[in-house]
Amino acid sequence: MVSIDEKLSNLGLTLPPPPKPVASYVPAVLAGDLLYLSGILPFRDGQVAITGKLGQDVTVERGAEAARLALLNALAVVKQELGSLDRVQRIVRVVGHVASASGFVQQPAVINGASDLLVQIFGEAGRHARVALGAAELPLHAAIELELLVQVRA
Amino acid sequence: MVSIDEKLSNLGLTLPPPPKPVASYVPAVLAGDLLYLSGILPFRDGQVAITGKLGQDVTVERGAEAARLALLNALAVVKQELGSLDRVQRIVRVVGHVASASGFVQQPAVINGASDLLVQIFGEAGRHARVALGAAELPLHAAIELELLVQVRA
Amino acid sequence: MVSIDEKLSNLGLTLPPPPKPVASYVPAVLAGDLLYLSGILPFRDGQVAITGKLGQDVTVERGAEAARLALLNALAVVKQELGSLDRVQRIVRVVGHVASASGFVQQPAVINGASDLLVQIFGEAGRHARVALGAAELPLHAAIELELLVQVRA
Repeated sequence: MVSIDEKLSNLGLTLPPPPKPVASYVPAVLAGDLLYLSGILPFRDGQVAITGKLGQDVTVERGAEAARLALLNALAVVKQELGSLDRVQRIVRVVGHVASASGFVQQPAVINGASDLLVQIFGEAGRHARVALGAAELPLHAAIELELLVQVRA
Repeated sequence: MVSIDEKLSNLGLTLPPPPKPVASYVPAVLAGDLLYLSGILPFRDGQVAITGKLGQDVTVERGAEAARLALLNALAVVKQELGSLDRVQRIVRVVGHVASASGFVQQPAVINGASDLLVQIFGEAGRHARVALGAAELPLHAAIELELLVQVRA
Repeated sequence: MVSIDEKLSNLGLTLPPPPKPVASYVPAVLAGDLLYLSGILPFRDGQVAITGKLGQDVTVERGAEAARLALLNALAVVKQELGSLDRVQRIVRVVGHVASASGFVQQPAVINGASDLLVQIFGEAGRHARVALGAAELPLHAAIELELLVQVRA
């Protein structure tokens, strides 16, 4: 049985330090066996690394990279909250908000960056319900923002 | 006691085949007694049937029709997941995203297409918490996108 | 032990009458120990009190005031549903939708109006997971719309 940390390592992935909220909210709240994460931006070294709007400043490929990066930040939060990613029973739901210029409608292709990576990391437990949406604007000019809902092993 | 399938039939409604996700996500995830659905577009015969923005290309009436159509797709997913719509204990929550041109603010009237139909089909169990929002863009130029959260009978 | 009603009073805050849905949905649904609220606008005296878009018609300060006002409306719904705000065990999650003109990306500063007030009122139990988003349009030209998820004491 390979641990999730080993799987991340095998995939050549490193989790960033979990982003710190800068206001009166917290990175995640556990209610029963469900862990609700705050909205996560594609942070790298404390900065939003991929900014701008899809269909204008950012290609679909680069948007998918932003989704992967935001997901790694989200998993860093999950690990911080649960101690180990092996406590993830199921990724229940992902909402992907894509900053979209007028006429851009390939939000699903962008959010696949996160969805595909979840299945690579967690296998069947990574298959989630998903919502892909086009946002008018996102905080700090981020190209994408992710929401995650995670079921935790008892 | 009339079954939900009979109610659908009495209302002259037919469920479409449930839409198939085209990526690493699934149509719905059950966590405890809550069924989380993926975002649902107004599909008919495998195509998004109602496209464009409210306040520009699509009237409120046609938008409400899109909401009804997306809801039928959502119920097709629920039936596929649960085996029978009679296992629905409560429609907990509906989020309706309406593709909105600048200045369009009648999102609630559009999403009523889904809300009213839920109560026609499920009665009191169909009364849900609801969020109506205006999106900049939606996948595949869909006029609306629905999220559903359903509580399942034990 | 100070009750939440006393805390509200100490903060000089009064809850408005809970807003009434005008369609086939309800203000809130309780599923297990989680109370899901419908989307809440900044109502005062039955009208949306703060309208327009951030980055165009509405300053960040005024937007934060809209978030505070919407939160008071949300708490009025919670009190109506639970009988007493002392039954709130935890504010699990807040989503803040900010009507955003092109280029406005200070959604977090706007939603802090609600987040800060939650901690003032509920202390640690008020620290929530949060998502801040920029909406193209919101119902009735509201400047902001809030979603709340509340865990209820057994």
